[in-house]
Amino acid sequence: MGTADHVDPYAGAGATHRVEIPPPQPFSESLKNTLKETFFPDDPLRQFKNQPPRRRLILGLQYVFPILEWGRHYTLEFFRADLIAGITIASLAIPQGISYAKLANLPPILGLYSSFVPPLIYAVMGSSRDLAVGTVAVASLLTASMLGDAVDAQQDPQLYVHLAFTATFFAGLFETAMGIFRLGFIVDFLSHATIVGFMAGAATVVILQQLKGVLGLEHFTHKTDVIDVLHSIFTQTHQWRWESALLGSVFLFYLLISRYFSKKRANLFWISAMAPLTSVILGSLLVYLTRAEKHGVQVIGHLKKGINPASFMDLNFDSRYLPIAIKTGIITGIISMAEGMAVGRSFAMFKNYHIDGNKEMIAFGMMNIVGPFSRSAVNFNAGCKTAVSNIVMAIAVMATLLFLTPLFHYTPLVVLAAIIMAAMLGLIDYEAAMHLWHVDKFDFLVCMAAYVGVVFGSIQIGLVLAIGLSVLRVLLFIARPRTIVLGNLPDSKVYRNVHHYQKAQTVPGILILEIDAPIYFANSNYLRERISRWIDEEEERIKSCGDTGLQHVVLDMSAVGNIDTSGISMMDEIKKIIDRRGLKLVLVNPVAEVMKKLEKSKFLETLGKEWIFLTVEEAVRACNFMLDCKPQDSTKYTNIV
Amino acid sequence: MGTADHVDPYAGAGATHRVEIPPPQPFSESLKNTLKETFFPDDPLRQFKNQPPRRRLILGLQYVFPILEWGRHYTLEFFRADLIAGITIASLAIPQGISYAKLANLPPILGLYSSFVPPLIYAVMGSSRDLAVGTVAVASLLTASMLGDAVDAQQDPQLYVHLAFTATFFAGLFETAMGIFRLGFIVDFLSHATIVGFMAGAATVVILQQLKGVLGLEHFTHKTDVIDVLHSIFTQTHQWRWESALLGSVFLFYLLISRYFSKKRANLFWISAMAPLTSVILGSLLVYLTRAEKHGVQVIGHLKKGINPASFMDLNFDSRYLPIAIKTGIITGIISMAEGMAVGRSFAMFKNYHIDGNKEMIAFGMMNIVGPFSRSAVNFNAGCKTAVSNIVMAIAVMATLLFLTPLFHYTPLVVLAAIIMAAMLGLIDYEAAMHLWHVDKFDFLVCMAAYVGVVFGSIQIGLVLAIGLSVLRVLLFIARPRTIVLGNLPDSKVYRNVHHYQKAQTVPGILILEIDAPIYFANSNYLRERISRWIDEEEERIKSCGDTGLQHVVLDMSAVGNIDTSGISMMDEIKKIIDRRGLKLVLVNPVAEVMKKLEKSKFLETLGKEWIFLTVEEAVRACNFMLDCKPQDSTKYTNIV
Repeated sequence: MGTADHVDPYAGAGATHRVEIPPPQPFSESLKNTLKETFFPDDPLRQFKNQPPRRRLILGLQYVFPILEWGRHYTLEFFRADLIAGITIASLAIPQGISYAKLANLPPILGLYSSFVPPLIYAVMGSSRDLAVGTVAVASLLTASMLGDAVDAQQDPQLYVHLAFTATFFAGLFETAMGIFRLGFIVDFLSHATIVGFMAGAATVVILQQLKGVLGLEHFTHKTDVIDVLHSIFTQTHQWRWESALLGSVFLFYLLISRYFSKKRANLFWISAMAPLTSVILGSLLVYLTRAEKHGVQVIGHLKKGINPASFMDLNFDSRYLPIAIKTGIITGIISMAEGMAVGRSFAMFKNYHIDGNKEMIAFGMMNIVGPFSRSAVNFNAGCKTAVSNIVMAIAVMATLLFLTPLFHYTPLVVLAAIIMAAMLGLIDYEAAMHLWHVDKFDFLVCMAAYVGVVFGSIQIGLVLAIGLSVLRVLLFIARPRTIVLGNLPDSKVYRNVHHYQKAQTVPGILILEIDAPIYFANSNYLRERISRWIDEEEERIKSCGDTGLQHVVLDMSAVGNIDTSGISMMDEIKKIIDRRGLKLVLVNPVAEVMKKLEKSKFLETLGKEWIFLTVEEAVRACNFMLDCKPQDSTKYTNIV
Repeated sequence: MGTADHVDPYAGAGATHRVEIPPPQPFSESLKNTLKETFFPDDPLRQFKNQPPRRRLILGLQYVFPILEWGRHYTLEFFRADLIAGITIASLAIPQGISYAKLANLPPILGLYSSFVPPLIYAVMGSSRDLAVGTVAVASLLTASMLGDAVDAQQDPQLYVHLAFTATFFAGLFETAMGIFRLGFIVDFLSHATIVGFMAGAATVVILQQLKGVLGLEHFTHKTDVIDVLHSIFTQTHQWRWESALLGSVFLFYLLISRYFSKKRANLFWISAMAPLTSVILGSLLVYLTRAEKHGVQVIGHLKKGINPASFMDLNFDSRYLPIAIKTGIITGIISMAEGMAVGRSFAMFKNYHIDGNKEMIAFGMMNIVGPFSRSAVNFNAGCKTAVSNIVMAIAVMATLLFLTPLFHYTPLVVLAAIIMAAMLGLIDYEAAMHLWHVDKFDFLVCMAAYVGVVFGSIQIGLVLAIGLSVLRVLLFIARPRTIVLGNLPDSKVYRNVHHYQKAQTVPGILILEIDAPIYFANSNYLRERISRWIDEEEERIKSCGDTGLQHVVLDMSAVGNIDTSGISMMDEIKKIIDRRGLKLVLVNPVAEVMKKLEKSKFLETLGKEWIFLTVEEAVRACNFMLDCKPQDSTKYTNIV
C-alpha cells in the first residue's frame, strides 16, 4: 500500500461514532430469542407475568375459553342483538347447510347437523366474535372431489359418508396439532393473491357443478375441471329439462337482485339474508302446488326427523382408505382455516379486537373433531354482539331438525343449486384481481395461476401452483437481490438510488453500491458477478468520458439483514477482486448480525476496521480525504495479492 | 384531526428533499429488466455490442469454444508447463480412474476410458484452465448406490453397465439443458455448508465401503448407510484377511505421509501426486513376487488391451429402468457440477480469471453425453498453464490403454482401496466444519444435517435434508423479519439499533422501528402482530416510568426491498391500528419499488404524502415540531376511524 495507509480514514471523515461490534450474547440466549420470535411472536404468556397463581389460573382458563372473558360483561341488550343475528344467520344457514351437503355428495341432513354442533364449540373456544361457522362450500367441494376419486358416493353411500367423517376428523386433528405446536404461520403462506384466485376458481368449479342440478341431468362427470364438465353437459343436450332450468334462473335472478339491493343500502341487509330461506319456501310451495316433482323437477325427498348425531363408530380407519382420508383432511383443514381466519380477521379489524391464529386453529380443530364439518357464513351486518348469536342459531337449527324436516320434502334441488350459485358468484372478486394487476403484476400472476389451475386442473393443482409461485418469488427475491447505485442529493448529506431520485449525483472516483437483501448461499455467486460487472461498467464509463479514475468501492450494507458463511466467502472474494484492480473496498453500516459474523470470520481484520463507516456520507468524506493525502503521481493504491 | 393537521410537517423538518415517486417505467421494460437480471446477470452478450458482424462471429465462436481465445497466445513455455502438469495428472488419474470405476461397480477399464475422452472435450469447451476432469468419486458412489437398488451389478453386469451409461447420458443432457436455459443458478442452492457436510458424509461412506477391499471380504451389503455397513463387517469377522488388511494399512500410511510432506512444502507437491502411481507399481510388484494373489489378496486380473469406446447402442432406454436412470443422471449431474464449479472457481480466484456457470454446465454436459462419465482431479500445483494439460493427460491415458493394461493384472485391489481412502480423507474438512460452528450456527446445523443424512440415511436423504434446511432458513428470514428499535446516537443525526449501539437513545414520545426484510404474504401477519406488540410494550413502559406519552410511530422502510399486495393490506391495517390508538404513523425512506406500489394502491393518499420523510432524522424533527404546534391541553391526535 502507498503512504495513504498510514493516515486514519476516520480523521478525514470527521466521524463521531464508529461501527460497533454488538455486545456478545451467549448462544443459548440468542437461540432462545430466535425460537421465541419464530414460534411465539405474539408472546401469549405476557399477561401471565407477575401475577398471583389464582389470577394465573383464571387467565389461563380465559385464554383457552374466551367465553369466560366476554361472558362476564354480557348484557340483555347484547342478547337482543344476538337473538336477531342468530335467527338471521339460521335462516341463511339452513338452506346453505343442505346445499353444501349436496355439494359434498353427503345426505342433506348432515348439512343441518353441521350447522348446530360446530357453532356451539366455536362460541366457547373461538376468538372471533363475528364469525358464524358452518359448512364451507369450498371444503365441501374438495371433500367431494378428493374422496370421489376413491369411492363412488352413489354406489357405496355409507362408506363415502364414513370417509367424509374420517377426513373431517383428521382435518380437526391436524388443525388442533398445528395450533398447539404454534404452526399457525403455515396459513400465512396462502397469500392474499392466492386466496383471491383460488376462491374464484373454486367458485367457478362449484357453479359449473350446479349446472347438473339446474339442467336436471341424471348423469354427470366426477371430475371438477371445466373441460370435463362442459363436455359432460354438451353431450347430454337432449337430457336438459327446461322446467328445471327456468325455475333455477328465476330463483338465481331473485337472489342476485336481492343481494344487489342489500349492498346498496346497508339497512336492507335482511333482504339478502332472508332470500335463501324465502327461495326455499317459495320453491317448495310451487312444487307442492304444481306437482312439478312428477315433471322432471327433482326434490330433496324424505328427511329423517330428530337428532341422530355421528358417533366415533362412524369413523373409518380402514388402511385402504386411510391415506386418502388423511390427505383430504389436511387439505380441507388448511383451506378452511385460511378462509375462516381471513374472514375473522377482517371483522376484527373493524371492531378492534384481536384474533390469535394458533388459538383459532385449536378451536377450528376441535369443531372438526367433534362436529362433522364446518362452514363459514358470516353475518356482520346482522349486528351480532358476541358468539351467543352462534348459540341462538344452533338452537334454531336444532328446532328445525326436530320439527320442521318434513317441510323440506318438496324443496326442489334446483333452488338449492341457485342458492349455491348466488353465494359462489359473490366469491368471484373481479375487482380484487384488477387491483392486483394494477399494484403488483407478480401477485396477479399468482392469482391467475391459482384460478387457471383450479378451473382447468384440480383444486390441488391450483393450490400447488399458486403456493409454488409465491415461494418462488420469495426465493427469487433472495437469489437475485438488487444492487443499487447511490448518489448524493444536492445540498444534503443523503445518498439515495440514482434511478429513483433523478437529482442524485454520483461522486467522482467512488462507486457507491447498496445491496438490498441478506447475503446468503443463494445469491453469493450472483452478487459477486454483479458487483464485478458494476465495477467493469463504471471503469468503462470513466474511460469513455475521461472522468476521475475509480478509486473506491463503497458497499452500503444497511439493508443486508443477515449473512451466512457462503456470503462471507463472497465478501472475501469481492475484497480480493477489488484489491487486484487496485481499488479500495469500504463498508457502510453493517447491521448487528452481519457485524458479528464479519468479526468472527476475521473478515474485519482483512478489511481493516478503519474502512467501516456508520453512514455513506462519512465513508465518502473519508475516501475523498484519503485521495487528497496521496502523493499526486500515484493514481491507484498499490496492488495487494 | 386537531389543529396540527394544518401545519405542514415538512416545514418543521427543515427537509430539502421529499421522497419521490420513481419515474414511471412501462411494464414491458420492467419485465425485460427483471428477466435479464434473473437469467442473464452476467450479461453474456455485452462484448458483442457495437461490433462489426465478422468480429461478432469470431467472438461468438470464442464464447462457445474458449480454446480459440487462449489458443492464439499459446507459447512453447506454456506447453512445457502443461506437459509436466499433464503427465503428473495422468499418474494420478490412472489409478484413480480404476479405483472409482470399482466404486461405481463398473469394469476398471471404463475408468480409464473416462480419463481420456471427457478431458479432451473440456479442453475445447470449458472455461476453467486449471480443472482436470475425470470421474468423480462421489458421483461414482451415487451411481452405484442408486442403480444398485434396481439392478445387481454382479448378477447382470452388462445391464448395469448400460444403465450407468444411460444415467451418465441423462446427466449430460440435463447439465447441457440447464446451461442453455441459463439455469446455472440452481447449483447456487447447494450452499458452502451443504457441500462441506455432504462431501464429508460421502467420503465417510466411501471409506466404509473400502473396508470390504481392505479386509478382503467376499460378500458385502449393497446399502451405503453406516449401520448396515458396520453390521455387514462385524458379522463376518471370521472372514477378515490379515494379509490384505496389513497391505492396505501400509499403503494408506504411505499415501497419507506423502501428502503430509507435500502440504508442508509446496515444491514437494509431486511426492503426493506420484504416490498413487508408485503405490500401484509397488503393490503390483509385491503381489507378483510373493504370489500373494493365491493367499487371499484380490487383484484386478485381466484387462482388455486397446480402445473399445462406448457407443450409442450401449444406452438402455428400456421403460422399466428409464425412471431410475433419469433420476440417477439428474442427481449425479447436479452433484458433479456443484463440485466441479466450486473447485474451478477457487482456482479462478487465484489467477483472476472468470468462470461462467452456465457455460461450465454446457461443457460438463457435453462431456457426459460424449464420454461415459466425469471426474475432477485437479492439479494446480503442477503448474499447468492451460487446458492443454488435459490433452497431454488424455494422450498419456490413451497410451496406457493401448500398451500398458497387462501391467495392471497383478495390481491388488487393496491398493486401490487405500488410494480411494487417502483421497477421501482429504475431503473430510474438519476445520471448515469448526469454522461454520464458530461463525454461523445455522450453517453448522445444515452441514451436520447433510453429514448425518448421508452417513446414516443415504446420499439423497442427506442432500434433501441440507437443501431443505437451507431453503427453510431463507423462508424463515422472510417469514420472521426483525423489527428493530432505533435510537439517536448522541451528537449526531444518525439513528441506529439500540441493542447494537449501547449509546443510542430513544426519542421521548416517538417509537422508531426498522423492518429489515421485504414485506410479503409470508410475514405480513407476523409484522402486524409484532408492530402492535412493540406499541403495547412501549406504552406500558411509558406508563410505568411516567415518560412523555407516545405520539408517533416512525417506520424506517430503508431495508424493505419490496412489498406485495398482502404487505400493502398489512400497511393499511397498521395505519388503522395506529390511528385508533390516537397515534400518528410516519414512514421513512421507502425504496423505489415500495414507493411505486404504495402510490398505486392509494396508501400514500390515506397516509398523507407529508408523512413520508427521506431520513429518520427529518421524521423525528417533524414529529417534535408537530408536538410543539399542538395546543397544550390535547394530549393525542383525535381518533380517526
